[in-house]
Amino acid sequence: MERGGGFPRGTGSLFFLPDAGFTLWKSLIKGRFISYNSTNLNDFSALVSFCAREREPGGFVAVSERVIKAMESSSWIRKMFETGSLLKEKFGNDNVFDFSLGNPNIEPPDEFEKKLKEYTQAAVPGMHAYMPNAGYPDVREKIARWVSRTEKTEIASGNIVMTCGAAGAMNAVLKTILNPGDKVIVIAPYFAEYDAYITNHGGEVTRVAAGEGFDLSVENIEKAIDSKTQAVIINSPNNPSGRVYSDERIDQLSSMLERKSRENGKAVYLLSDEPYKKIVYDGLTVPSVIARYRNSIIMTSYSKDLSIPGERIGWLAVNPGAEDYDNLMGGIIMCNRILGYVNAPAIMQKVVADLQGVSVDMDFYKRKRDRLCEILGNIGYGFAKPEGAFYLFPKAPGGDDLAAVAALQEERVLTVPGRGFGTPGYFRIAYCVSDRVIEGSAKGFEKAFRQLSAK
Amino acid sequence: MERGGGFPRGTGSLFFLPDAGFTLWKSLIKGRFISYNSTNLNDFSALVSFCAREREPGGFVAVSERVIKAMESSSWIRKMFETGSLLKEKFGNDNVFDFSLGNPNIEPPDEFEKKLKEYTQAAVPGMHAYMPNAGYPDVREKIARWVSRTEKTEIASGNIVMTCGAAGAMNAVLKTILNPGDKVIVIAPYFAEYDAYITNHGGEVTRVAAGEGFDLSVENIEKAIDSKTQAVIINSPNNPSGRVYSDERIDQLSSMLERKSRENGKAVYLLSDEPYKKIVYDGLTVPSVIARYRNSIIMTSYSKDLSIPGERIGWLAVNPGAEDYDNLMGGIIMCNRILGYVNAPAIMQKVVADLQGVSVDMDFYKRKRDRLCEILGNIGYGFAKPEGAFYLFPKAPGGDDLAAVAALQEERVLTVPGRGFGTPGYFRIAYCVSDRVIEGSAKGFEKAFRQLSAK
Repeated sequence: MERGGGFPRGTGSLFFLPDAGFTLWKSLIKGRFISYNSTNLNDFSALVSFCAREREPGGFVAVSERVIKAMESSSWIRKMFETGSLLKEKFGNDNVFDFSLGNPNIEPPDEFEKKLKEYTQAAVPGMHAYMPNAGYPDVREKIARWVSRTEKTEIASGNIVMTCGAAGAMNAVLKTILNPGDKVIVIAPYFAEYDAYITNHGGEVTRVAAGEGFDLSVENIEKAIDSKTQAVIINSPNNPSGRVYSDERIDQLSSMLERKSRENGKAVYLLSDEPYKKIVYDGLTVPSVIARYRNSIIMTSYSKDLSIPGERIGWLAVNPGAEDYDNLMGGIIMCNRILGYVNAPAIMQKVVADLQGVSVDMDFYKRKRDRLCEILGNIGYGFAKPEGAFYLFPKAPGGDDLAAVAALQEERVLTVPGRGFGTPGYFRIAYCVSDRVIEGSAKGFEKAFRQLSAK
Repeated sequence: MERGGGFPRGTGSLFFLPDAGFTLWKSLIKGRFISYNSTNLNDFSALVSFCAREREPGGFVAVSERVIKAMESSSWIRKMFETGSLLKEKFGNDNVFDFSLGNPNIEPPDEFEKKLKEYTQAAVPGMHAYMPNAGYPDVREKIARWVSRTEKTEIASGNIVMTCGAAGAMNAVLKTILNPGDKVIVIAPYFAEYDAYITNHGGEVTRVAAGEGFDLSVENIEKAIDSKTQAVIINSPNNPSGRVYSDERIDQLSSMLERKSRENGKAVYLLSDEPYKKIVYDGLTVPSVIARYRNSIIMTSYSKDLSIPGERIGWLAVNPGAEDYDNLMGGIIMCNRILGYVNAPAIMQKVVADLQGVSVDMDFYKRKRDRLCEILGNIGYGFAKPEGAFYLFPKAPGGDDLAAVAALQEERVLTVPGRGFGTPGYFRIAYCVSDRVIEGSAKGFEKAFRQLSAK
């Protein structure tokens, strides 16, 4: 392993390890780590540009330019998660306070384990075989009944497609509706993978700032819509802000989108990404999008509410009143197939179909939210109390999110910079973690706050 | 339901039902079937063009033009499968002989059921949570050990990515390596979904004809390579021909690709799609591609050899000596994530990792192959005896594959036209079916043969 003041030669790649105490970058050449010392997190972007320029001497550059570029700006969440794994190796699991990844730390509810055992005991013939690409008919029927009840809209099994999680749903939908250069609006702060999902299929990302307290600003969205706008993505409860949009706000958004669709002579689809819909606090409920706007598609997964993100199971529902419905539904089913998903994992379809309305205990996350808000509030951090999901999105003391994340990291507290969500100046804390992590982080949060505020 | 001599108004869509006896097209408008009578299967393309032109009057056309076009030419296999489902409803399951889909009709081996039960009984903490995007480290390690042994090449766990089947693997790889306009060579006859996988990521398909008896023609491939050629896809045992390429042929291909890579100053990647690798007959073995060519990626799934296609589990292995290896591997792992797969289904990763070398009984398929060859040979069909996989690809008597498939369909024998595999004039029989289907089809195969030959 080399250490030095210059950038390593021939770096082709990816890795970085901001070490505790001082910042140490690592990059990988043909399986060998090369390290680079720096005192500043901002150097990362310089290293990354360098890596993109410099290739293994004499070698062919074979990977797509788009992919090289995407790797450079690839997920901050994953970067911090990977950094966390390395820090844990070095300092021991108990001395690292990792709030980087939305990986629920609660086990799935007993009902899930019970159903899974039932289906594996039974060994039903054809259970693991191909089924229609949109999913098992009986599974789609059960989901449709649930959606009809909870969304107060009549949804038939034919309106449902079982998917490889909400990410799979979003990709199938975007591939279906996007012509090259079509625009999709996202509301910052937002889950940055949307950028990749949109550009995967030739679309362009239009970033629109949220309003006061990260509420939806219908005015900002309206201003951003033009004749190339094909869709708006919303996510409530929101990752990373924890904000839940009100009935009134969704009504306003729907009216505006109806009007703009008429004006532009083309439907603006509303894609509602709802994996956190059941994770809400203080008696709040999340308004139905599908009941309010005709050109809507809702999509969700069981990753968060059943704590099974590794299983990649979710569904989407297309509003039966949507424009160009037949092509839309036929296109989504085909795109789900040709993107290589083919169909959602068979056994998990069967298991989740029987678990409508079942979820992990929301008090589990509420207690964590309350305790973390108490800790951060006492120290002096500025934030809006989350109404749902399991994220907190405080202001970076001093204003620089990279500096804040770096200062916290020196205390072995791992968070994600707000620029990873299109919103510099903030940082995200994923509090789906053990109480040990929350309690253990208090000192680090305080020390970093003092240090950052003193600057 | 309307029946009439003209094309229906306002058709937006997709469905068709070639009825037995006479040909009846169906299309779907807002959930309602509209039928159209025709006497000729070739009319289908006319109907499809019509559907693409005519939209619901006054409605917006919202779906991407690429997707509309793809739906028009969408999978013949799926079309025939769906036709089969409708015919079964009408004539009863026992009176339809459905050879349309490669959906293994054998149940998974006992070892699979046993392992699945073990993992669900145990309820290991974190079992269904996120793991690194490339898969569980212990799973990748087990696969790497298996691949090292069977491929006689040292493969480390870091060279393996767990994927959502071979289709997921192919999409992640193609997204990684394709710049817009890059070409990918496929060998006709081939699995037509490759067309979609390539164009999904901006690539262009270069079709190259197979040689004598559907063997690999290295000469044809060499002629087709130009400076835009980024990859060659091979599939042995081949779907639909059942052909297995010899050691010698893969050696020749490798030498040629090495030479062309040097000449063009860029690597031509060899993507070997190997889901049927374990399904071979008469003591044959499938040569190792990864041991023979440096710039190779092999990919496979457990869909066929463990009979679990609905579970979407497979893996890919990147040759550690491949050009631009770090970017290639980093890119594939990232593309697997951003295409929305995120990771391969968690529990199935664990289950298959313990089942290396386990597969369904190959005699089961061999008996079916032998019996079907006997039936078709006695009638007079021309075909090369399959060496692997579970497909037969006979010449269409009379030379017209659509006419042959239509004539067989009138006998309620469902097959897929060769043009669905880039090779008109042949048709595919998927013989992963019950003996009842094989025995019951004999009369229909004979009647259709006589009728087609008499023309």
